[in-house]
Amino acid sequence: MTYKVGLLGLGTVGTGVAKIFQDPNGRHPLLPDIDIARVGVRSLNKQREAIASNIVTEDLEAIVNDPAIDIVVEVIGGIEPAKSLILKAIANGKHVVTANKAVIARHGHEIFAAAKEKGVYVMLEAAACGGIPVIQALKQSLGGNRITELTGIVNGTTNYILSRMYFEGADFDATLAEAQQLGYAEADPTADVDGYDAADKMAILASLAFGDRVKLEDIYREGIRSITSADIGYAKELGFTIKLLGIARRVEGKDDSNLEIRVHPTMIPLQHPLANIHGVTNAVRIEGDPIGEVVFSGPGAGAGATASAVVADIINVVAALKSMPNQVNQLMGYPHENYAKIAPIANTVTQFYARLLTHDKSGVIGDLGTAFGKHCVSLNAILQKTTVHDGLAEIVVVTQRVSELNFQQAIATIRELPTLHSIPTVLRVL
Amino acid sequence: MTYKVGLLGLGTVGTGVAKIFQDPNGRHPLLPDIDIARVGVRSLNKQREAIASNIVTEDLEAIVNDPAIDIVVEVIGGIEPAKSLILKAIANGKHVVTANKAVIARHGHEIFAAAKEKGVYVMLEAAACGGIPVIQALKQSLGGNRITELTGIVNGTTNYILSRMYFEGADFDATLAEAQQLGYAEADPTADVDGYDAADKMAILASLAFGDRVKLEDIYREGIRSITSADIGYAKELGFTIKLLGIARRVEGKDDSNLEIRVHPTMIPLQHPLANIHGVTNAVRIEGDPIGEVVFSGPGAGAGATASAVVADIINVVAALKSMPNQVNQLMGYPHENYAKIAPIANTVTQFYARLLTHDKSGVIGDLGTAFGKHCVSLNAILQKTTVHDGLAEIVVVTQRVSELNFQQAIATIRELPTLHSIPTVLRVL
Repeated sequence: MTYKVGLLGLGTVGTGVAKIFQDPNGRHPLLPDIDIARVGVRSLNKQREAIASNIVTEDLEAIVNDPAIDIVVEVIGGIEPAKSLILKAIANGKHVVTANKAVIARHGHEIFAAAKEKGVYVMLEAAACGGIPVIQALKQSLGGNRITELTGIVNGTTNYILSRMYFEGADFDATLAEAQQLGYAEADPTADVDGYDAADKMAILASLAFGDRVKLEDIYREGIRSITSADIGYAKELGFTIKLLGIARRVEGKDDSNLEIRVHPTMIPLQHPLANIHGVTNAVRIEGDPIGEVVFSGPGAGAGATASAVVADIINVVAALKSMPNQVNQLMGYPHENYAKIAPIANTVTQFYARLLTHDKSGVIGDLGTAFGKHCVSLNAILQKTTVHDGLAEIVVVTQRVSELNFQQAIATIRELPTLHSIPTVLRVL
Repeated sequence: MTYKVGLLGLGTVGTGVAKIFQDPNGRHPLLPDIDIARVGVRSLNKQREAIASNIVTEDLEAIVNDPAIDIVVEVIGGIEPAKSLILKAIANGKHVVTANKAVIARHGHEIFAAAKEKGVYVMLEAAACGGIPVIQALKQSLGGNRITELTGIVNGTTNYILSRMYFEGADFDATLAEAQQLGYAEADPTADVDGYDAADKMAILASLAFGDRVKLEDIYREGIRSITSADIGYAKELGFTIKLLGIARRVEGKDDSNLEIRVHPTMIPLQHPLANIHGVTNAVRIEGDPIGEVVFSGPGAGAGATASAVVADIINVVAALKSMPNQVNQLMGYPHENYAKIAPIANTVTQFYARLLTHDKSGVIGDLGTAFGKHCVSLNAILQKTTVHDGLAEIVVVTQRVSELNFQQAIATIRELPTLHSIPTVLRVL
């Protein structure tokens, strides 16, 4: 029996998916049982490689309403019409494979509830970390574990920028401009450099790792715009690199809001397994009981990687359908129904790095030490460089592990010091 | 409905599996549906933690013959009685989960054929690379890809030894002795240090990656006993590290024996993703079309990691059974039925490293150059150190990419040179 796929979107990912099915030799033996029966595009005027024109349509609704279609593959991106098409496909009893992190991170609850009611699959391996099979691992392979921490470099654009800044000492703006020219960053880079894309992915990954739904707005989020070549230089000097990390972990807490989820630029020690993940590569490190630590790395975006994940999901659905047309496999669903209580960022306990510019007067270090001490912030390292310019001195401090609340209060006190000029950068340390 | 597991073996792995089921909170929601109903041990005299004595028996046959048991989990290890018990369980229509790489690598064909006939699952995530979910990835998540290469650090003992040699400059024998004291190496270390364990795992991984059965005896295998601190030193000087690698890849060939599978110590460039995998950690790098490169790393052995993989397999079987008791899911089987034709090692094209001791006479380098040139072996680098001892000079050569056949012929010629004393080490370069 052949299963019919309706492909919504024929951009780079959609084309990548189609190419895999057109050239099945040496791939999974199930591929020939799957037929890309209809393809929905925005405009028929564009030239299409290798897709028979009689299956291409601009009428995407017709595809999700077509009784002959078994699986709808949504690779349009964006919230609408993607969300409505997914919900309509589910309402029509079709299984859905999507690469759409934005829709899943924002409307997953509605989509999963509808899918559960209709007894269909919603598969989303491609929605986080492209080709890296981390969703499958969280849903199945690591099922025996109690996950304690999931950290990841889940945005390729920012990792590309930070890697170049690290290796070349370049500045953020120049590197971003180059990344845009090379197609690694969008014309409007907000979603990437301000951490929105990473937060979407962390919402998805954390909900699978910790078994509860995660509200996107509960995730603390900071981008990488404030990172300068000076910070990269200090990081190197201290034995660190700087990465935009997503961090989700269970912490010992007084109440049940013991899940921490945050996305921010992070200083990480060079020996850490995520420190050597460079360029557009993504990586996820998972810590669990009893497995210990596992790390997955690979291409987080791009036609090939995303298509690989989409096809894996299609194969999974087809294999399940072949053997059990009327029953869903529990491992392929999303059991979470409750929302996780996320700890406020103020509760975070971590080390901090701060770079301060001060007026070069005697007593500055004493003033800083007093302010940190007053708020119970112990220091681990303090570096003072000779005058930078305009009579300003640059001072870098790295704290011990302290609470975010105490640290921010100390910073507020320091901002009032007459000897302070500014605090260009504050980073958390892993 | 509860599914009943018969656990064969209650060593570290078996105990690890039992502990997960005894403490299901925060793990996969399917765990409470699974009951470890019977446990088979070698001797009832040993004290058991936390297993009710009424379910423990020395009669392992009784477990595989018990009609109440749905899934037999084999964590005894070794060939017999494991193999016979697995086959008997299958004959009795039970699903099997095994961590036994030796049985699968040697008798997989018989076991898979029996399982196919009976329509039962044989799951083996734990048989290669412990907790790293690479089997699942090869069977499912990477199914859309045509795999071109799979390289791995698949033996923790040798990686531990080589890592310590690299970081501490220690010698092989001393490091092995320490590894034995610490429990990282067996009293008889042959299976690990001579590459047999790695070859077992590569047979399993390559058969899944490339879709054909692999005969263990077709895998070229070399261990790490010849590696000295001198070689590690030269590797560092040249920007490399030395790892025991399993390498399986498709090469362009004149005939259909275009699959290369080999296990040997390998010089790998420090920037390679496997170069920074240290200690007992395992890692697998997979290259495929269209995904590009993905890397998985994690604990390759140990109670927790292996138990994590065993439980993942049990969950997979139970989820499948719950939804489709009478049908097997194709993604969970092993489609390969033919044997792969493995290219002979002589066909390999790679770079080589050789360390030679020569009598310190003029013309030595010329003699070597002539011998290599005669067999079309071009050199990439040649290092000559001052006299080592007893009038001997140490010379290290690194070749260009050449055929194994030509290189070995050149080495045979060089062994005849009157100026040659010995060739302590020959390594392939990745």
